[in-house]
Amino acid sequence: MQKTQNNLRIIPLGGCEEVGRNMTVFEYDDKSSATRGKDIVILDMGIQFPEQDMPGINYVIPNTKYLRGKEKNIRAVIFSHGHMDHIGAAPLLLDRLGNPLIIGRPFTIELIKFRQEDYSSGSSKKLKITYVKNIKDEIKLGAFTVKFFRVDHAIMDAVGVILQTPSATVIHPGDWMIEHKPIGRKELEYNQLSNLPKPTVLMLESIGSTNTKKPITEKEMFDNLERLIKNAPGRTIIATFSSQVQRVKQILEFASKVDKKVALDGFSMKMSVEIAKKLGYIKMGKGTIIPINKINDYPDRKIIVLCTGAQGEENAVLPRIVNGEHKFIKIKKNDTIIFSSSVVPGNERTVQRLKDNLYRLSDNVIHSDIMDVHTSGHSNIKDIQDIIRQIKPTYFIPVYANHFMLKEAAKIAYEMGIAKDKIIVPDNGSVIEVNKQSIKVDQKKVPTNYIFVDGSGIGDVGEIVLNDRKKLAENGMFVIVAVVDKKTGQVKGSPDIISRGFIYLRESKDLLSQTRRKVVGIVNKTTGSDQAVNWVHVKDEIRNKIGQFLFSKTERRPIILPVIIEV
Amino acid sequence: MQKTQNNLRIIPLGGCEEVGRNMTVFEYDDKSSATRGKDIVILDMGIQFPEQDMPGINYVIPNTKYLRGKEKNIRAVIFSHGHMDHIGAAPLLLDRLGNPLIIGRPFTIELIKFRQEDYSSGSSKKLKITYVKNIKDEIKLGAFTVKFFRVDHAIMDAVGVILQTPSATVIHPGDWMIEHKPIGRKELEYNQLSNLPKPTVLMLESIGSTNTKKPITEKEMFDNLERLIKNAPGRTIIATFSSQVQRVKQILEFASKVDKKVALDGFSMKMSVEIAKKLGYIKMGKGTIIPINKINDYPDRKIIVLCTGAQGEENAVLPRIVNGEHKFIKIKKNDTIIFSSSVVPGNERTVQRLKDNLYRLSDNVIHSDIMDVHTSGHSNIKDIQDIIRQIKPTYFIPVYANHFMLKEAAKIAYEMGIAKDKIIVPDNGSVIEVNKQSIKVDQKKVPTNYIFVDGSGIGDVGEIVLNDRKKLAENGMFVIVAVVDKKTGQVKGSPDIISRGFIYLRESKDLLSQTRRKVVGIVNKTTGSDQAVNWVHVKDEIRNKIGQFLFSKTERRPIILPVIIEV
Repeated sequence: MQKTQNNLRIIPLGGCEEVGRNMTVFEYDDKSSATRGKDIVILDMGIQFPEQDMPGINYVIPNTKYLRGKEKNIRAVIFSHGHMDHIGAAPLLLDRLGNPLIIGRPFTIELIKFRQEDYSSGSSKKLKITYVKNIKDEIKLGAFTVKFFRVDHAIMDAVGVILQTPSATVIHPGDWMIEHKPIGRKELEYNQLSNLPKPTVLMLESIGSTNTKKPITEKEMFDNLERLIKNAPGRTIIATFSSQVQRVKQILEFASKVDKKVALDGFSMKMSVEIAKKLGYIKMGKGTIIPINKINDYPDRKIIVLCTGAQGEENAVLPRIVNGEHKFIKIKKNDTIIFSSSVVPGNERTVQRLKDNLYRLSDNVIHSDIMDVHTSGHSNIKDIQDIIRQIKPTYFIPVYANHFMLKEAAKIAYEMGIAKDKIIVPDNGSVIEVNKQSIKVDQKKVPTNYIFVDGSGIGDVGEIVLNDRKKLAENGMFVIVAVVDKKTGQVKGSPDIISRGFIYLRESKDLLSQTRRKVVGIVNKTTGSDQAVNWVHVKDEIRNKIGQFLFSKTERRPIILPVIIEV
Repeated sequence: MQKTQNNLRIIPLGGCEEVGRNMTVFEYDDKSSATRGKDIVILDMGIQFPEQDMPGINYVIPNTKYLRGKEKNIRAVIFSHGHMDHIGAAPLLLDRLGNPLIIGRPFTIELIKFRQEDYSSGSSKKLKITYVKNIKDEIKLGAFTVKFFRVDHAIMDAVGVILQTPSATVIHPGDWMIEHKPIGRKELEYNQLSNLPKPTVLMLESIGSTNTKKPITEKEMFDNLERLIKNAPGRTIIATFSSQVQRVKQILEFASKVDKKVALDGFSMKMSVEIAKKLGYIKMGKGTIIPINKINDYPDRKIIVLCTGAQGEENAVLPRIVNGEHKFIKIKKNDTIIFSSSVVPGNERTVQRLKDNLYRLSDNVIHSDIMDVHTSGHSNIKDIQDIIRQIKPTYFIPVYANHFMLKEAAKIAYEMGIAKDKIIVPDNGSVIEVNKQSIKVDQKKVPTNYIFVDGSGIGDVGEIVLNDRKKLAENGMFVIVAVVDKKTGQVKGSPDIISRGFIYLRESKDLLSQTRRKVVGIVNKTTGSDQAVNWVHVKDEIRNKIGQFLFSKTERRPIILPVIIEV
């Protein structure tokens, strides 16, 4: 019975240890058919934003080493929705993977095309695309049948994906939440997914697994936002994530209704609105959007500015406004400024400083501490319980969150009656094999180490360069250039010293002249003997002794770089 | 009437823009008495922990330039409690200010003495100390009469301070909260403070001014902690802040009661417990505390480990345990690990990573997302309303928090009926003048710019060095050493290149040889003419052209440092 057991292999290449760079490989190996070979379908190709300990890095992309040599088996890449942690790596990876078919809803695909163009002009024309025009579309990809279902998330056209194979059916909502008071539509339910062919594998984005808070409904949030906009004594400036496209759409539609003008600022936000308009996803009067340089042509009360930068990101719009660096907007005392956003972990202090500066300029700063002007795009514990209860999966795999969140989601599933051996908490690179009888994880993982993107370099910056950057940031560097006479082995003149980030040189002349004398002493002593000079040894001596000397004087440890030039 | 108006001058030197480095100067100038001169009393001398954009900085201390030349007027420095943001700068500043008298409750003073010794052995003996042995003690300091009152905070012996002068009475609770279910004592009230001589100035720590949450009571938290400790299947490892001395005390006393053993780890925590024991502040059986290296001498169920490092700080105890670097503790599957802590803003990602790693090792990780195992040492909006209602101050000055929190506290006071002109939101360096008739802020501020402590240097690292550190961290550095023949003006041999944090040199040989050729070209061309060589110009050329070249190849901008040696 075991011998022709066909397995569906599931390999998360990212998104299962930290939030971001989401990408999952699905591989179906039909062992009964020698000619068919393997079919690979990929879900999402996202980037991860750099951490504090990755200075200078632009972003991190999934490691696709596992797919090397398997390019011809890739039937398609499916995208659940258009957020950067799901599509951002597409321009870099699609090309490397032999330009496979991409599949997604119109808004998602248009965003990918835009990112592709932004990365390399003209390149979006090469994309092979299947648009999911209708949510009921079904697509055959080798052994896979792909179907879709609606989910609530912060962006239009977010969908869940169903991958049916002869061995198992995967249900993957992508990023999701359950909106309990949706505006203009019914609350979503997932009961119908419990009827899919068994075994079913629910791969569930689990960011909400430690969230016990009752969610703020879309209705509550918009009631607050609308009241603020209507009653604003002057302009309304709303900062939100560019990823909150759904919210931007609703604000635009409301502005149109109450006859206010909206100026958009922020590259991604403007681009998303442009695409949404083109697709007919935003219903508003023609003159609702005005260019940012026209805001002074209208009374203040008519003006809404919708911008990015609520996280205090350097050079983003809101920080530029607050710092007085924005070309067209200076904060006025009676502006109403709304942070329609949460704080991304790691940005707390930056956001606090931004708020400090804003409070100096305006008396009307509104943020989630004060009023419910933001809802999350992710679920909470109760939603996770509800979706598990509705879908009744055979197997449960929490994904797309930090490891501790996956573990907590696994606990929720266990407490709801799913047996321990039917729950898998994967790591990036875990190889999960599912078939009609069982689910199991292979001993061996596939490589998923960070691929850093820095400038135009992809993967060329590694741990060594990053460690040097961290050391340079801590204590700076100290270059010593000594010119040595070939014949005598003695230092000629006074060694040059170049230092940055260590001490302020102009105020440290004593220290520098002492250091120079020490260097001369070290070199002259080590090269004084008659034997051939070991320059590596001389440099080591300088590095050690000058390092100790500088530490004794400053308790700092700059990177010391000796250069010796023989003339 | 105005002419002999005596003013109390209040100057916050820190703590009024961001949290930390708390220090306030109170100056009373008796204009009617030519001989008396001025009396200065100082409250607190704290440090501020460095921000993300202060790489390599150990901490920040208050700027005391304003006090230069006024040392002889300083009657005393009073400390409200023993946390580092209130006492940490004492070892550096007391000496500079002519070693004035220090005043505080026993636990606070013992902590200061310890920090003083830690900074410079033997130096604590020089301290001039007045212990506040009884909360009812009154101390005359020139024109000031100092009194105290009890407050709830995370540390023993936290007090509020009353500064009575002929012009006004300042009421300053230091850091505070209201514990609504205190264990073994009555809930604190401040009604008696409404009877102090008017005008009264309430200087209120306002960290809680945007906190709408109902606080977790001490009782709820300890009920949870005690249940976890009692029912733990194996060892209990509790990570908390070393500043939570009150909690550490209560855990020790509970452990003694249920006959468990406690091993402490973490420098500050051990030191605090040592001092608290010496003062008789902890009531426990003799053998309750055991050395960390003896934990294996007892059954696991008998063991509690109390440690620091819940913020994931590098080299702190919990991270070392989790990374397998701790000498005596390896996490076991059935250890219960409790984060009895909140996340300090800015540390969110570090704590998430720590949790991720812990969840890999233990199935019993408890943190505030899951159970109430931590209470804050600070108040919430309702507490701020209550204390204002009880004290009924004439004037209100929110302090010891971020600017936006001070503004929100001011709104609370205003909504409670305090007139706008009786509320001052100070900045660091604001000079507030109070007398019987009025309160006002001077136009001019005193200097309060950051004083960075880095290694043994105090104040020598400034913006220039910090900016270089940030630039080095972003893109690294690139040193070019060219030897030029004095006679011909031509480069001899091939220029040396030293780079760190830019690219991995071993994999960039092409780029380096192209760069060398370019350098030779630039130098030979610029020095080729018959005129005297302008070396500054040559270096600028190298910096610009090589900068452009490297950017065109990598889209990175390392700091370029040209060195030219003439031989």
